[in-house]
Amino acid sequence: MPLLSLLLVCSSIAAFAQDALPSWNDTASKQQIVTFVKKVTTQGSADFVPPEQRIAVFDNDGTLWAEQPIYFQFFFVIDQLKAQAPQHPEWKTTEPFKSALAGDFKGVAASGEKGIAQLLAATHAGMTTDEFSRNVNQWVSTARHPKTQRVFTEMVYQPMLELLHYLRDNGFKTYIVSGGGQDFMRAWAQATYGIPPEQVIGSQGDLKFEMRDGKPVLVKQAKVALVDDGPGKPVGIERFLGVKPIFAFGNSDGDQQMLEWTMSGDGARFAGLVHHTDAAREWAYDRQSSIGKLDKALDEATAKGWTVVDMKKDWKQIFPPQK
Amino acid sequence: MPLLSLLLVCSSIAAFAQDALPSWNDTASKQQIVTFVKKVTTQGSADFVPPEQRIAVFDNDGTLWAEQPIYFQFFFVIDQLKAQAPQHPEWKTTEPFKSALAGDFKGVAASGEKGIAQLLAATHAGMTTDEFSRNVNQWVSTARHPKTQRVFTEMVYQPMLELLHYLRDNGFKTYIVSGGGQDFMRAWAQATYGIPPEQVIGSQGDLKFEMRDGKPVLVKQAKVALVDDGPGKPVGIERFLGVKPIFAFGNSDGDQQMLEWTMSGDGARFAGLVHHTDAAREWAYDRQSSIGKLDKALDEATAKGWTVVDMKKDWKQIFPPQK
Repeated sequence: MPLLSLLLVCSSIAAFAQDALPSWNDTASKQQIVTFVKKVTTQGSADFVPPEQRIAVFDNDGTLWAEQPIYFQFFFVIDQLKAQAPQHPEWKTTEPFKSALAGDFKGVAASGEKGIAQLLAATHAGMTTDEFSRNVNQWVSTARHPKTQRVFTEMVYQPMLELLHYLRDNGFKTYIVSGGGQDFMRAWAQATYGIPPEQVIGSQGDLKFEMRDGKPVLVKQAKVALVDDGPGKPVGIERFLGVKPIFAFGNSDGDQQMLEWTMSGDGARFAGLVHHTDAAREWAYDRQSSIGKLDKALDEATAKGWTVVDMKKDWKQIFPPQK
Repeated sequence: MPLLSLLLVCSSIAAFAQDALPSWNDTASKQQIVTFVKKVTTQGSADFVPPEQRIAVFDNDGTLWAEQPIYFQFFFVIDQLKAQAPQHPEWKTTEPFKSALAGDFKGVAASGEKGIAQLLAATHAGMTTDEFSRNVNQWVSTARHPKTQRVFTEMVYQPMLELLHYLRDNGFKTYIVSGGGQDFMRAWAQATYGIPPEQVIGSQGDLKFEMRDGKPVLVKQAKVALVDDGPGKPVGIERFLGVKPIFAFGNSDGDQQMLEWTMSGDGARFAGLVHHTDAAREWAYDRQSSIGKLDKALDEATAKGWTVVDMKKDWKQIFPPQK
């Protein structure tokens, strides 16, 4: 090969390597990620981790996609309620349905966990897993975010999509571990994140096996089987995986135990938090927010030297380009 | 390559292909398995299934390893009770502990589900997942079956080990879906079956996240989270996988719903039952057995043409050669 061609090949390889995270500015966060991945994937390095142990877990709401002004699954619930409202005239005068139909988040929040459970029961329970997936898929391809008017699966963070790919290209298995509904996320996680259903762990309701028209179905129940948030995240990870991840990313106090659990093993480990600091391009919120509150976990990250991503400074771009 | 060498290579390839299931006699069961695997893995075949959808699920007790005179996990429970007995003098006179310590299975059975739950709580609850795994590993490498005097992980079925390998060699992902304890099986499933922890689904107790000496741990709770048996098996599969398997093997009525669930999807599918017919080399039992009762599922298998493995006729060898 002539020298010039060789140089061109080498420089494109170098460019390719540099471009694995093109939406990340060349700040400390990116450097910490790349340094970690290099050391656990370099054969012969003291920190080398064999591929089967390269498990990376990601929170979803606020970590992989946005979560303001309220968790996106809640928009789905409201739209499902609206579709069912004609059969339920009593909802017009009964809380939490009245507030939910009016899009009054504060009113719904005032009804507490019991109210939210009632909404989930009304919109999720009684239907088969297949029917539910169809509903979610239909909604996710048409419903739009009130502020950006984009479909919700376009409100994912471009730098985090790149990170997912970068990790997988380096032999990691990427999992979602989220407080959101497991069945809700599974309906679109493969197409959106490249994460297959069995690698999506979320909050779960009970299921019941039934025969309908001679065919077996699984029917969603109102009873909750796992709240995959806070201390429930290590529980979800253990139930599903049975091994400790070596890499974890979250954005709120609900992720604190998952990060602690990840960091408690032997060998090289990585914990990261997305800090929402960009009021212009996204939202800015942390210690006082009712959605995605980041307070204790931020203190722990600072004390322990975990990576804290400053969205405003660290990310060139927040959302993917409009299609 | 000289012609002779070429012929030798070709004949060894052919021999290798024929030998994928060497412990299986060349009867209908083996032919049905091989025919199924060939048609779903042949590119261009109408029945071709892409590798990511080649999910195979196996019951454990009575399907991958023996289950007589009682589920092997129960021997573990008894041994754990014996180790703890000096600290619990009251067990000598209290059921179900008295019967369990005496190895009186009938006495334990008489105490019903509540009694069994009490035994599990006493031997599993309160300990961390790490402590429990260590206990199981220690036990499984030393305890021996009362009849054969072999360690329990040598009481696995050689033909089923070959089947697991054969499926994996053909791009399948192999899962355990068992009524046995998930954490109990995960401790040795990788070494014994080549099945990693995240592909072992079983009955589960609740877990609690706690800090002990400043380190996060998960503590096993007495409360049951999933009974992964009968109609609980499709529930376990859906929770963990979110997709329907295309291949399922069981041996009892507790596997019936898993087989129905597997067969209810589109395209080519396989359902198999191990029928315990060999009183000389293993045990012979079916419709009347209190352990691994096979009655309704046998009728359904016959009616629907599912594969029923006759251990006596179909298997050349039951257990692996003694080490």
